[in-house]
Amino acid sequence: MATSLAYRLAPYASVASDLDVDAVALVPGPNFMRAVQHSFSSHERPFLLVIPAHGPAAALVPNLELGSWDLVGFDGAVFDWRDQDGYNAAFAGLTKHLSISSLAVEGQVMRVFVHHALKTAQPDLTIIDAEREISALRMIKTKADIAAMQAAIDLSERALSRTLASVKLGQSEKQIEQMLVQMLFEEGADDLAFDPIVAAGDGSARPHAKARQDYNVKAGDALLIDYGARKDGFCSDITRTVFLDHVTDEGRAVYDTVLRANLAGLAVTRAGVTAHEIDDAATSVLEASPFADRIRTKTGHGLGREVHEAPYIMRGNHMILPAGTVYTNEPGLYEIGNFGVRIEDDVLVTEDGYETLTHFPKDLTVLPC
Amino acid sequence: MATSLAYRLAPYASVASDLDVDAVALVPGPNFMRAVQHSFSSHERPFLLVIPAHGPAAALVPNLELGSWDLVGFDGAVFDWRDQDGYNAAFAGLTKHLSISSLAVEGQVMRVFVHHALKTAQPDLTIIDAEREISALRMIKTKADIAAMQAAIDLSERALSRTLASVKLGQSEKQIEQMLVQMLFEEGADDLAFDPIVAAGDGSARPHAKARQDYNVKAGDALLIDYGARKDGFCSDITRTVFLDHVTDEGRAVYDTVLRANLAGLAVTRAGVTAHEIDDAATSVLEASPFADRIRTKTGHGLGREVHEAPYIMRGNHMILPAGTVYTNEPGLYEIGNFGVRIEDDVLVTEDGYETLTHFPKDLTVLPC
Repeated sequence: MATSLAYRLAPYASVASDLDVDAVALVPGPNFMRAVQHSFSSHERPFLLVIPAHGPAAALVPNLELGSWDLVGFDGAVFDWRDQDGYNAAFAGLTKHLSISSLAVEGQVMRVFVHHALKTAQPDLTIIDAEREISALRMIKTKADIAAMQAAIDLSERALSRTLASVKLGQSEKQIEQMLVQMLFEEGADDLAFDPIVAAGDGSARPHAKARQDYNVKAGDALLIDYGARKDGFCSDITRTVFLDHVTDEGRAVYDTVLRANLAGLAVTRAGVTAHEIDDAATSVLEASPFADRIRTKTGHGLGREVHEAPYIMRGNHMILPAGTVYTNEPGLYEIGNFGVRIEDDVLVTEDGYETLTHFPKDLTVLPC
Repeated sequence: MATSLAYRLAPYASVASDLDVDAVALVPGPNFMRAVQHSFSSHERPFLLVIPAHGPAAALVPNLELGSWDLVGFDGAVFDWRDQDGYNAAFAGLTKHLSISSLAVEGQVMRVFVHHALKTAQPDLTIIDAEREISALRMIKTKADIAAMQAAIDLSERALSRTLASVKLGQSEKQIEQMLVQMLFEEGADDLAFDPIVAAGDGSARPHAKARQDYNVKAGDALLIDYGARKDGFCSDITRTVFLDHVTDEGRAVYDTVLRANLAGLAVTRAGVTAHEIDDAATSVLEASPFADRIRTKTGHGLGREVHEAPYIMRGNHMILPAGTVYTNEPGLYEIGNFGVRIEDDVLVTEDGYETLTHFPKDLTVLPC
């Protein structure tokens, strides 16, 4: 059942009230998408939706987007601007109309040029970064959100199965990445959730490695694949690490440690747990192992419309996870110059515990190639 | 031939000098990529490369990226930070080390949370938006840049040919989009340059329409496809509008007007022309037609590592285009509720004139379906 725009904007007005600021501003991105249920991009054109704590919302819209904006069903004031005229007059009109003195923005989405345009239009406007509070509204997923994410995950796992079945010694990381990407789209992806990581051998030790044209996978390599698809606005984010042809004792021991860390994070997961507690459970396993000096990352992050969103699963983050949160459980161990292992599941927090939305096997896998 | 990092950073030091600021800061994005020749993403983690007008550069790097950062060959000071510790200490270390009082940033790339972190570390730091000056360094394309862009364009055109050959009446816009996307990857795309626009009938009148699940293309529709691929870091951006089964006299007249505008923009293109002059040449054709009230956009924008970059091809922008600039020539006419037409080429500015990198036919096309 589609919800009304007013219903979807109301929580942002509450965020403004809670923060004791006059309004919340959204720019195109995941929160904007959640609020208006239509996808807009911004590029070099400022685009702004302002939801006051009290009173009607207002928008600043590039003129060429007005036809698309009509679909949103917005009945507040709209300040549009054309490329030839620039946007300063529209910002001046918007701020005059709103008559506010403080504004909460999404610090990880809004870019500096929009911040500058707001300050130019109203130099005494106080702008605070409320990324956490604004994006927290996306943390509890609806059934429809979870269904979209499950579809993204299912198609991603089908693509990974097919890719691993096609891996041969001597292929470059880049070739394997291209197979994976093509299969993701064949399986129905709307888009990639992010540039996949396909990293073998020493490349697997770099958590955010890029696939190399000039590295051909060889017997004994760890092959780490971290990838995701976007489907109906939601992301999957999955990592599996397999070994090619054979695995050393060191590889086996590292893999086993990472898997135990992943399972320890899952074991403490239920509604009411804190992000800190999950990271602590997983990271403690890594720390107690002989490979403690190979820890380089936190355990995970929230997943939804964005591939990285709240809650960030790390020690010191005492945010409580409610039922309906989806997070990635992705402990890893990385030794630069040697190899790395990461195992990443997408996990739905439930009242009683958790449900892993990822179902791809996690047993140590040695591909015969 | 690979160039050294010092060689690639020097122009940013010159930008700082020219602007009379102490340094330029780059964050992951197209300028960062150009400077370090490796792709990094940022998400929720600040990542900063600071190039002073005089003296060595310094960087603020998320700890988990250090393994990838090693590949860059950077020999300046690096301030890294771990998720569990937060990034404020690293910003404090960086600003203390740099000892600068003013900093030029990319206003369309840097996000507000990084701006805030800089101001928190050094409240008296003056931050100016130098997006235009910093990104202008990407405007003149090298031979390697153009070769990558040509590869992106060629594969995109092959995918469009195959897609149009498969269009059937009754397919949804979304189905056509999915065919196109799959064929782009089959033809070798690394990624989509942006979410494609596949819009028929009244949808074609929205310049940034999204493909609809619930609109099936029908005889007489205009079908507008605006799409692009990414290859080796560079983008294509192409639009063609075709008619399905038959075309009305109005459709024919509008198409003819847009095509004449496209050609008029090309006709004035050569090194030394201004962005204003190209837009003026194209838009004057539209204005002189019976469809002047359907103008909604400027003529185009630069194309390269980003799908929208300088120079913006619009009246009032008197920036001179040097040889080596690549821009999109994409006039259009849009009547909300009726239909729209856009024709978009990717154009390389040369000393003597221009070369269209796109070669897909522009004659009025009526698909038999």
